[in-house]
Amino acid sequence: MSIPVVWSPATRLHVPEHEVWVGVPTPGTELPERVDAILAALEAHPLHEATPHDDELLEAVHDGELLAFLEGAATAWAAGPYDELVGQDRVVPYVFATPAMLAGMEPTPATALHAQAGQYCYDTMTLVGPGTWEAARAAVDVALTAVDLVLAGERTAYALCRPPGHHVTPSGYGGSCYLNNAAVAAEALRAAGHDRVGIVDIDAHHGNGTQAVFWGRGDVLYGSVHVDPAAGWFPHLFGHAGETGTGAGAGTTRNLPLPEGTGDGRWAEAVTDLAQWVAGAGCTALVVSLGVDAAGDDPESPLQVTGDGFRDAGQALGGLGLPSVLVQEGGYRLATMGSLVASYLHGHAG
Amino acid sequence: MSIPVVWSPATRLHVPEHEVWVGVPTPGTELPERVDAILAALEAHPLHEATPHDDELLEAVHDGELLAFLEGAATAWAAGPYDELVGQDRVVPYVFATPAMLAGMEPTPATALHAQAGQYCYDTMTLVGPGTWEAARAAVDVALTAVDLVLAGERTAYALCRPPGHHVTPSGYGGSCYLNNAAVAAEALRAAGHDRVGIVDIDAHHGNGTQAVFWGRGDVLYGSVHVDPAAGWFPHLFGHAGETGTGAGAGTTRNLPLPEGTGDGRWAEAVTDLAQWVAGAGCTALVVSLGVDAAGDDPESPLQVTGDGFRDAGQALGGLGLPSVLVQEGGYRLATMGSLVASYLHGHAG
Repeated sequence: MSIPVVWSPATRLHVPEHEVWVGVPTPGTELPERVDAILAALEAHPLHEATPHDDELLEAVHDGELLAFLEGAATAWAAGPYDELVGQDRVVPYVFATPAMLAGMEPTPATALHAQAGQYCYDTMTLVGPGTWEAARAAVDVALTAVDLVLAGERTAYALCRPPGHHVTPSGYGGSCYLNNAAVAAEALRAAGHDRVGIVDIDAHHGNGTQAVFWGRGDVLYGSVHVDPAAGWFPHLFGHAGETGTGAGAGTTRNLPLPEGTGDGRWAEAVTDLAQWVAGAGCTALVVSLGVDAAGDDPESPLQVTGDGFRDAGQALGGLGLPSVLVQEGGYRLATMGSLVASYLHGHAG
Repeated sequence: MSIPVVWSPATRLHVPEHEVWVGVPTPGTELPERVDAILAALEAHPLHEATPHDDELLEAVHDGELLAFLEGAATAWAAGPYDELVGQDRVVPYVFATPAMLAGMEPTPATALHAQAGQYCYDTMTLVGPGTWEAARAAVDVALTAVDLVLAGERTAYALCRPPGHHVTPSGYGGSCYLNNAAVAAEALRAAGHDRVGIVDIDAHHGNGTQAVFWGRGDVLYGSVHVDPAAGWFPHLFGHAGETGTGAGAGTTRNLPLPEGTGDGRWAEAVTDLAQWVAGAGCTALVVSLGVDAAGDDPESPLQVTGDGFRDAGQALGGLGLPSVLVQEGGYRLATMGSLVASYLHGHAG
């Protein structure tokens, strides 16, 4: 039983020539070639091209203001003086309304695009250029088409989303993510009648965006296993064990941060723990934020998971027998990431 | 009657080799040579070297956490992998706890220095390197020594502070500023028994930091004339006419934003308006945030003020007859900035 793969050629359109880390332009790792690396490894699976979906569920996750900014930013930037002034042809923020800047005062929204960028983007790594919106929006269609397949009877569908999404909050983007594909998939499952949906995030980094979307809600659980942000890893400020939700969402967030160097056994145990948690809480559908950057050879994380670990994680989550939408998140080593995704899918299909 | 000039050779120690704007390293303009350009233009004035002052008044303005970070950041950065990894030998943030990132969740402070930086620094332009703390701390001593001269009987003293300070809030630095020299001077005048102190900021940019320090206080007035942030100028989020203070500080902040291209007449009228405002409010001492970047040839602002305008501004503020501490802020054209400061001082001395 081979899990169907949903993809879209438009997800290749976002080409981050570089990112900016501590003020230094460095080569990007969230590359269009990731799509092809995964496709190649999954060529035995049935392939579905994503179909267009309207914005209703996307707007349930993200503020309209963020969506309008992302849709228009590249064109507006190109019309500005930025390329001529400093040779910058991508939208990059430089000033940020942090608590330290605001100091309790109410800001007036910025008028200049170079200052507006920091209202929506919370880091300097997540550049917007020509094709970024088209790719990010296509990734949402990929996720929603995978949900369609599951609602039509597939037990599991894999959404080859790219760029990834789990760092995007209701109103802010960052961490190489623009739109929260997994959150939109969860909303789609909710809208289709699943009273409680579980999201398990096995990307090497905490999905602060997905956590934020469902922080105060009891109808969508969010559980994540990731490298401990307290060890110095993105997103730094979130992903600690003490973060468990608020209000109606109290107890519906779980974080299992792991030390640098954690390998298959302990990592897969943590995934199994989260699998049992969402099943025990009565979730009737599952979204997996499937990053494969926990791999030992990945350039973006210090975890040491192998293909066996990903297969075990897939078995733990697939073994729940829930309708499942697998949403691609991170994973940055082109040579191996496809086979790691295949290992997870193999385990999940059981 | 020639206004005494206070300076410190240590203010030259901060050497910002570059800044980062929209992700692009660009040459800095807040250079050590600014000190010498001003000294050269003021060589006829009595010169005083700053004397050391303890941290009491500095700590009245800034959180201890910000001070500790600034004091230790350069050494900690040099001990980290940043220069080796990406060739960055200055502290530059890359992720920021904006409202969009926080999304109503309570963050845990970051552990990694490259993430901590964004907790204190709110832009990518304000780099910390070897000598930054020493220079910024020396600038505070310069301001406090100028206050000493005034308290000892000088009607006016000029503090050649560098780096500038008016963008620094109680807990955040940015805008090429690290410690708020003018705010510390105002606190010193308050501590010396002046019940109400007026700060008039004639730098081309709004002093969001100084505004933040005194936002809720009635004992220090803050008035600023600057290029309209709504026209797209730093600090973008603050400096609008509607910002007037809160609580005990309600009505003790005044902002007079001016359109791009504003020249001598309208600009000096706005300064005169603020002079009358602080005098009318019963201030018994005056701090002037004396930036000269409103000049027509300054690379950092679109205002068109000349030496005549600065002289007129000096006459308006000096004409109040109040004990006055003049604190250097911006002004970035080395060839002309010294003479503009001299023009202002000439006017202020009357």
